[in-house]
Amino acid sequence: MSDLQVLAVHGLGEIVAGDDLGELIAAAAADRPGLADGDVVVVTQKVVSKAEDAVVAVDPDVPMSHKPLVEEQSVRVLRRRGDLIISETRHGFVCANAGVDLSNVERGTAALLPHDPDRSARRIRDHLRNRAGVTVGVVISDTFGRPWRRGVTDVAIGCAGIAAVVDLRGTTDALGRELQVTEVCVVDEIAAAADLVMGKALGVPVAVVRGLPAQWLRPSSVASEVVRSPAEDLFR
Amino acid sequence: MSDLQVLAVHGLGEIVAGDDLGELIAAAAADRPGLADGDVVVVTQKVVSKAEDAVVAVDPDVPMSHKPLVEEQSVRVLRRRGDLIISETRHGFVCANAGVDLSNVERGTAALLPHDPDRSARRIRDHLRNRAGVTVGVVISDTFGRPWRRGVTDVAIGCAGIAAVVDLRGTTDALGRELQVTEVCVVDEIAAAADLVMGKALGVPVAVVRGLPAQWLRPSSVASEVVRSPAEDLFR
Repeated sequence: MSDLQVLAVHGLGEIVAGDDLGELIAAAAADRPGLADGDVVVVTQKVVSKAEDAVVAVDPDVPMSHKPLVEEQSVRVLRRRGDLIISETRHGFVCANAGVDLSNVERGTAALLPHDPDRSARRIRDHLRNRAGVTVGVVISDTFGRPWRRGVTDVAIGCAGIAAVVDLRGTTDALGRELQVTEVCVVDEIAAAADLVMGKALGVPVAVVRGLPAQWLRPSSVASEVVRSPAEDLFR
Repeated sequence: MSDLQVLAVHGLGEIVAGDDLGELIAAAAADRPGLADGDVVVVTQKVVSKAEDAVVAVDPDVPMSHKPLVEEQSVRVLRRRGDLIISETRHGFVCANAGVDLSNVERGTAALLPHDPDRSARRIRDHLRNRAGVTVGVVISDTFGRPWRRGVTDVAIGCAGIAAVVDLRGTTDALGRELQVTEVCVVDEIAAAADLVMGKALGVPVAVVRGLPAQWLRPSSVASEVVRSPAEDLFR
């Protein structure tokens, strides 16, 4: 497996409803870092939600005015503590406030998760293929907390053209012994790597991960491959 | 924030008890990729456990012979299903089988987690400074599952000379609005990025992450900064 580069894409500008993200990303990345076949383009949820108009008005003078939205966006509430709600979204993601987010959006508005992030990723991928002539993978990332460990990390909420989970079952480890741990969620690792160059406060919502194994570049879906069904989940 | 490189370190060879990992890493990395001030060296738990002799005998002909070890290494069992035990280790990590692992170790043995992975990281860091003359961060990584999402990812179980959690509290987002999500667990993102070049089955247990912000290179600890106390945890 070869070395990897994680490259920030600057100059995307402020995204508004109706923007064609594929076109804007192609333009912003054209000069630097460029885009090449086999790259994986990581796009943060916030700009996808803005482009898709998944942004709603909230009263900026009422601190908890987005809470009814959180209830509405939740199909099941797992935990409540104070203002914090950990719930399951329609997509099957378990996260704080059902992904409803007031940061990096205009005052008086809240961003919701994209309706179908896998489809958002496919659309960006198709545009990049059609207009920039490159065959890339696309990951839509968001920032989630997790139990037992402090601090948030970026994970994938949608993908296209890149494996979500790579199955190493049946392959052997370096000592010829069959591997026990088998399925690696590479899209989450890609989202995490991208976050290291995006930075939360710097307004860099797109990064390119270059050098991933070619065999990982295949049709895939976060919704169907990463979301664990309640039946096989020990913590729901 | 600048671009990032994730570089595999090849040629470390098979690690045995008593090996000086700092020296071996310095030798393996000397030629390619080299080591430079500000690099972060990610080392997988397995080679640390081997070097520190945190490996014990199990009966290779009895499939569940490591299970008493799992009980012994657990301070609290959170869930059991079939052969799977999710438990909390002495360190405060919540993971499958208390980190007891049969892969990538010789048949008839099981690797335990290092006794104090933060100290393991500090020791490697000190050796690299003293013998290779470079000031780097060090992360000890391991492969954990997580609730709600399928597939494993690599996370940090120890670190030295690199911030575990970066606090963005009080800084503002790109629109000048105070950020809500504030503490990013960058060591987990670094471990995840490194795993993308290490691959589970390829016997590459060390990678170098180059290009992280200089201000993240500071004394830190996974045990005290990443492990969430039971009192503030909603899922224990």
